Amino acid sequence: MSGRLIGVGVGPGDPELLTLKATRTLAAADVVAYFAKAGKLGNARTIVAGHLRNGVTELPLLYPVTTELPKECANYRDAIRDFFDSAAAAVAAHLDRGHTVAVISEGDPMFYGSYMHLHVRLSARYATEIVAGVTGMSGCWSMAGLPIAQGDDIFIVLPGTLPEDELASRLTGADAAVVMKLGRHLPKVRRALARAGCLERAIYVERGTMADSIMIRLIDKPDDNAPYFAVVLVPGWECEP
Amino acid sequence: MSGRLIGVGVGPGDPELLTLKATRTLAAADVVAYFAKAGKLGNARTIVAGHLRNGVTELPLLYPVTTELPKECANYRDAIRDFFDSAAAAVAAHLDRGHTVAVISEGDPMFYGSYMHLHVRLSARYATEIVAGVTGMSGCWSMAGLPIAQGDDIFIVLPGTLPEDELASRLTGADAAVVMKLGRHLPKVRRALARAGCLERAIYVERGTMADSIMIRLIDKPDDNAPYFAVVLVPGWECEP
Repeated sequence: MSGRLIGVGVGPGDPELLTLKATRTLAAADVVAYFAKAGKLGNARTIVAGHLRNGVTELPLLYPVTTELPKECANYRDAIRDFFDSAAAAVAAHLDRGHTVAVISEGDPMFYGSYMHLHVRLSARYATEIVAGVTGMSGCWSMAGLPIAQGDDIFIVLPGTLPEDELASRLTGADAAVVMKLGRHLPKVRRALARAGCLERAIYVERGTMADSIMIRLIDKPDDNAPYFAVVLVPGWECEP
Repeated sequence: MSGRLIGVGVGPGDPELLTLKATRTLAAADVVAYFAKAGKLGNARTIVAGHLRNGVTELPLLYPVTTELPKECANYRDAIRDFFDSAAAAVAAHLDRGHTVAVISEGDPMFYGSYMHLHVRLSARYATEIVAGVTGMSGCWSMAGLPIAQGDDIFIVLPGTLPEDELASRLTGADAAVVMKLGRHLPKVRRALARAGCLERAIYVERGTMADSIMIRLIDKPDDNAPYFAVVLVPGWECEP
């Protein structure tokens, strides 16, 4: 009898934002698996530190060192595909022994989560369940006390990697927006926000809900240094009716 | 000394998707307030039923009966604005007595949540905190086991109230989408999805994560009956790399 695969959302960073279902799933799991960089625990594992069962088997899935390769490069794509294949095989080995494997995922597993790479490889073969989590962006706008969208607002999530023209036109067409994956794209994102008329109300958030988080109006941020996982929030609805 | 206003997200429906922070906030609150229709408890209150402190003061904020008035009508807008003003005053009366008031909100308070109407009226005057919650849409795609967005996907939330042309063009420009507020708009939403080439992969979800939820491929749904709060999910990323 094979085991059970569970994608567990662990929320944006504050361990108090774990759901009851996530903590109960972790307490009952035979194996807790997580993606991380070699030499680091990773955010998901850090968030659940207080909720692991004594003696639980941990299965870190360590990304290969491929940062020196551009993402467009075929070698990068092959390396990362091979890595996800072997991560799925490592999880499957536990499932084949009848284990329950909880794969912890920052935020919500099915919303830009790395868990999805295992899901598409394994969910057809094994009993699978998803435990929804609080997304990183919810954590950010909640910490900021920022009403993001209401009523008939159109809300959009845009990667900062898009070209400036596309960013500007999509921001213009939406009432509320989150721009993610900032990193070196921040100067371009600033220009696109200005062209779309929403630079004034944009809020920059770094490490939302974590102890060392940063939150500042983007126009007040004096530099363009931003980690890849920082976000810009553009609130829609503000004060009606 | 005045009290503390806390907007508490209670998640999409399954009480197990409450966060630890939500349950602790509810256990410590002097007053638990919630929006509901007269004669009904409402979803948020139902979700937290097992987590209220004995003897806690409940403050239901009952919507006036205005469904006979169209939303565009000035009378409706005035009535609903007056209602939110008086709801804010009722909450403020408790805050002025030094009470901690938890306003429970289905899903995430700042993401299309009715709590926001209190927030904009009170947060400048009282100490305020937001407890982020799992959104209704996360509950839906998790229950469906549906990877919704990944990598550089553009993700959009659209109200079904938009005109067909606008729905079709915005769906065409996004990789992944959620269409909400279906109700009588479902036939139009179907046509827009078809024009945008994403009808085939659209999933219809009603009462996501609740015991009596319905989930079906939209093309397999034989009728156009849909409650206002049903959603259509259009997954982006499917199987790469």
